[in-house]
Amino acid sequence: MSLGPIRLRATAHTTLRPATTATITGGFWAARRHTNATVSIPQGPERLERAGNLANLRAAAEGSGAFTGDFPFQDSDVHKWLEAAAWQLADGQPADDPGRGGLAADVERLVSLVAAAQDPDGYLQTYYQVAHPDRRWSELDWGHELYCAGHLIQAAVAHHRGTGRRELLDAAVRFATHIDSVFGTDQKIDGVCGHPEIETALVELYRETGERRFLDLARYFTDRRGHGLLSAGADRDRPRDPGPAYWQDHLPVREAPTVTGHAVRQLYLLAGATDLAMETGDATLREALERLWHAMAAAKTYLTGGVGSRHEGEAFGDPFELPPDRAYAETCAAIASVQWSWRMALLTGETRYSDLVERTLYNGFLSGVALDGDRWLYVNPLQVRDDHESRHGDQAAHRTPWFRCACCPPNVMRLLASLPHYVASGDAEGLQLHQYATGSYATDAGGDEDGSGGGAVTVETDYPWKGRVTVTVDAAPADRDWTLSLRIPYWCAEFTVAAPDRQDRTETDRGWLRIRRRWLPGERVVLDLALDVRLTEPDPRVDAVRGCLAIERGPLVYCLESVDQRAGLRLDEVTLAPSARTVAEHRPDLLGGVTVVTATGHRRSDGAQTPLTAVPYHAWANREGGAMRVWIPGS
Amino acid sequence: MSLGPIRLRATAHTTLRPATTATITGGFWAARRHTNATVSIPQGPERLERAGNLANLRAAAEGSGAFTGDFPFQDSDVHKWLEAAAWQLADGQPADDPGRGGLAADVERLVSLVAAAQDPDGYLQTYYQVAHPDRRWSELDWGHELYCAGHLIQAAVAHHRGTGRRELLDAAVRFATHIDSVFGTDQKIDGVCGHPEIETALVELYRETGERRFLDLARYFTDRRGHGLLSAGADRDRPRDPGPAYWQDHLPVREAPTVTGHAVRQLYLLAGATDLAMETGDATLREALERLWHAMAAAKTYLTGGVGSRHEGEAFGDPFELPPDRAYAETCAAIASVQWSWRMALLTGETRYSDLVERTLYNGFLSGVALDGDRWLYVNPLQVRDDHESRHGDQAAHRTPWFRCACCPPNVMRLLASLPHYVASGDAEGLQLHQYATGSYATDAGGDEDGSGGGAVTVETDYPWKGRVTVTVDAAPADRDWTLSLRIPYWCAEFTVAAPDRQDRTETDRGWLRIRRRWLPGERVVLDLALDVRLTEPDPRVDAVRGCLAIERGPLVYCLESVDQRAGLRLDEVTLAPSARTVAEHRPDLLGGVTVVTATGHRRSDGAQTPLTAVPYHAWANREGGAMRVWIPGS
Repeated sequence: MSLGPIRLRATAHTTLRPATTATITGGFWAARRHTNATVSIPQGPERLERAGNLANLRAAAEGSGAFTGDFPFQDSDVHKWLEAAAWQLADGQPADDPGRGGLAADVERLVSLVAAAQDPDGYLQTYYQVAHPDRRWSELDWGHELYCAGHLIQAAVAHHRGTGRRELLDAAVRFATHIDSVFGTDQKIDGVCGHPEIETALVELYRETGERRFLDLARYFTDRRGHGLLSAGADRDRPRDPGPAYWQDHLPVREAPTVTGHAVRQLYLLAGATDLAMETGDATLREALERLWHAMAAAKTYLTGGVGSRHEGEAFGDPFELPPDRAYAETCAAIASVQWSWRMALLTGETRYSDLVERTLYNGFLSGVALDGDRWLYVNPLQVRDDHESRHGDQAAHRTPWFRCACCPPNVMRLLASLPHYVASGDAEGLQLHQYATGSYATDAGGDEDGSGGGAVTVETDYPWKGRVTVTVDAAPADRDWTLSLRIPYWCAEFTVAAPDRQDRTETDRGWLRIRRRWLPGERVVLDLALDVRLTEPDPRVDAVRGCLAIERGPLVYCLESVDQRAGLRLDEVTLAPSARTVAEHRPDLLGGVTVVTATGHRRSDGAQTPLTAVPYHAWANREGGAMRVWIPGS
Repeated sequence: MSLGPIRLRATAHTTLRPATTATITGGFWAARRHTNATVSIPQGPERLERAGNLANLRAAAEGSGAFTGDFPFQDSDVHKWLEAAAWQLADGQPADDPGRGGLAADVERLVSLVAAAQDPDGYLQTYYQVAHPDRRWSELDWGHELYCAGHLIQAAVAHHRGTGRRELLDAAVRFATHIDSVFGTDQKIDGVCGHPEIETALVELYRETGERRFLDLARYFTDRRGHGLLSAGADRDRPRDPGPAYWQDHLPVREAPTVTGHAVRQLYLLAGATDLAMETGDATLREALERLWHAMAAAKTYLTGGVGSRHEGEAFGDPFELPPDRAYAETCAAIASVQWSWRMALLTGETRYSDLVERTLYNGFLSGVALDGDRWLYVNPLQVRDDHESRHGDQAAHRTPWFRCACCPPNVMRLLASLPHYVASGDAEGLQLHQYATGSYATDAGGDEDGSGGGAVTVETDYPWKGRVTVTVDAAPADRDWTLSLRIPYWCAEFTVAAPDRQDRTETDRGWLRIRRRWLPGERVVLDLALDVRLTEPDPRVDAVRGCLAIERGPLVYCLESVDQRAGLRLDEVTLAPSARTVAEHRPDLLGGVTVVTATGHRRSDGAQTPLTAVPYHAWANREGGAMRVWIPGS
């Protein structure tokens, strides 16, 4: 309905611009977003109250009380929830929401709590205000002060865009102004935060306010990183020094050969650097970003789009170090990957970035939230053995209502709430559909200065279950040709398209199917993507899944779960031949309605044939526990 | 020459008893032990001085000064070095040791330092004495006080056995007496230590002193574990609660279905429990130990004998979760595995335990120390990729002179210094050779009460390079039959033996080749073990190495290192066929003299044949860096 998380300045150096308005009205994502709006987000305030986050804000406001929680960044959970709720308010409340109307009140209540907690000088982080006032800005490695400021800024921008209210934005500007007076090569502190996040937030604050000092500050934080500013204090209280890559302080972004270290830190940083490149036109930065994205996509990304394979340090592993069982693949890292890749798609106009966004959204991101919207996965493995030992703190196979480190749940909420804004973009030539979701999308990028022009489309589809996508052009320039561009996913071996004047258009321009013509409102394009089941071989350099096959269909990665197999069949015993017969069948009764894939496999021990039933990976761990695997040994 | 680490009481309930005297005089292990005696051990005091461990002891003695080091258990490095040095003194100094004579002086100097640091009540841990006197016995989870006490006791026993001096033993008895007055169900603290170690030490102190209260205390610490005594305080200062299995407090030993949690903690505990079972005849404990050992050996042990596959928590993984690249396989865990398995071998008399001791000693243990005896590996992976990213704190592919957490180096030293005592055992029937190492071994287990009788053998062999083992019986009962038992390794498909009266004896009794006869002194047995190169397939349940082959010869696991291959050959590109031709050749010039295996492999990219050169895994990472792999993809 409204502006989304990225609102480029008119001067931005970018190939594409986000759609001006975007609404998802039906289909796959509408259902998941409905659960987000009616279950996940409404529960936030109670969860935050129970975890002590709100008490921390009250303690800071009142100047008395104890700090609750295990981490200095507890406030960021509140900020991220506020951002999610603000995007949801912007999008409109579902008519059947039992808490309808209550959300706006909750938001204003929490906004007031946050604003009241702010110090007169603009500082705001309850951990330091309540528990350690003497340590402010002295623990940049682990303190997360600028990280929390970044999430506050993002929440404030969302709140302003979503509700038109300025209270949180004013607080964010005060804090950012304070930070600007404290940090800098000519200020009292020359330093960066141990957890990137403020960079992307400051660029957005610049976009929202037009104040160039925030862009300059974002550039300062981006450029000063990688010069060892964090190393001196990095070891203070922890027996294991995680090393400079953990803090993204190992190399300047422009010099880094590959993505490394803590995955979320790395990807938030690169999202911010991409924002910076878009607003400044910095060519060396763009070059580095393209190199780093390629290194990630080619060698450090799971089939599910999950990234950050190592549990230790929540970090990227070596190239092709992608174990399915010990995949960390944090939900937040998938979200960060989507946020970065979408910015790269806008910057470059290339489809590869949205290809990865699609893979991540439908698989390694969506697995992070239960179908009921009430339980979460922090870690997203691609395999759980039959004899998996459930352990204390094991977040791999058990969906949990909340976490001690609760970064993932509100992060999922904010991405789902703002998801329409990842679907479409516009440029002077027309409109581009990056994802296929029933809804309406408009751009004024090609319009005149008075705001007229641009174009709008309506999309109808049962994607990802069916491959048909019907696009109706609702508005387009009446006086000139205008291009509707449809992304043909890289996994799609075959497609057909029916456009008003040409029925057999299958030539693509680096992944874009471009339909350029003079449009009449109401004209339709029907795209049919073939959704054949694929048995995917891994890159032979991924040692951990050598000789295995994965079942895919369209953008969906499938997995076997014990609960769907014949009684007594151990998944550790199953093999699958490249020539195995597969059948896809929609099952409205299962897991909220999914297309299952059945395949004929074999049992290793005796070679006996056995039917295998696969469900979409994103829907795993929603029933009884048990084994799961994406990669199935070949036979 | 003298008593080793285990001196069973006469009343012990055990099948076998350690050899009464044991000396390694030549061959493979003599060379490694010579380096240990002349390089590794002599450097200890200087390394401990530089790391601050000795300053901590002085600070405690003087009651002033600061604590140095990152861990509360810094003292244990000193204790373990003292234990190593004491076993070395017991064994005799090498004649060509440049520091000959100096070691005894160093030992007495450090013994005096330790004794001087002890409080009047017997307490001794400098971290609490110097830095946190108010916290004594209040942080049982992470404080390592009983752990350090255990290592002090082991050092004291070694010092007493090795030198006959009582100063350290008296200090240990004072500390143990103090602990006995503090801990217990009827004492002020009912608790256990977050790091097992004191259990095995207390049993040995009972063995050394005959004081039953120490055995009772060991039983108390063993039995109280697994009842959640540690959970309450387990979370204090650390953002990530590692959970009860980390502290080995998840289940009582008798109830645990498998080995889990922190590997070294798990295995020290089980070694102590085995000591307890031997001295008490506790049948339920023995049953649990056999079950747990099988669970470890069958599903949680690498081909190299390495254990504890997870970096996170230095922990055992799920069954068959044995990634070669991210193998943690801590050197200390391999040592703990050897210590436990040897006790199981004595308890049960079964060869399987010494089979694993052999595999671990020659591979995953020995890889922990460089050929020059001066650099160490903490982590022992089975694969390093061509594009491995060297990272801060990465202990996987770089041998390091010392560690911030320096548990491994003195642990290697003490095992190498006491190694002769892991070779042979005796019982009423005769003598058993568990390992093949040139030297002399004697038992009085079958002797009369006046000490006469028993038997002695001399072994000569070039094992593991050659399969011939010549055993000369130097002494045996003159008046009755006596059995020489030789372990036939489970990997050995074929062997021959020449004994004085029967030339073709190849019948084995569960892995033992038993030669029972009336012996004349000087009679010989010549055993020839076939050392054919084997291309080993992994268990199909080990997902991470599916479809791979490993090169083995005798007890040695081999690996490919980049430095030995044709220029430009990437190890990530190499494949090996099950039918590949292999040749073993001894290379006296290479890596101090090793038998290399050459095989014909292929390059994946173009299928071209390429010669591959494999070296023993234990010798890897002794030259320039580069890729390494044990498991080679099949072709």
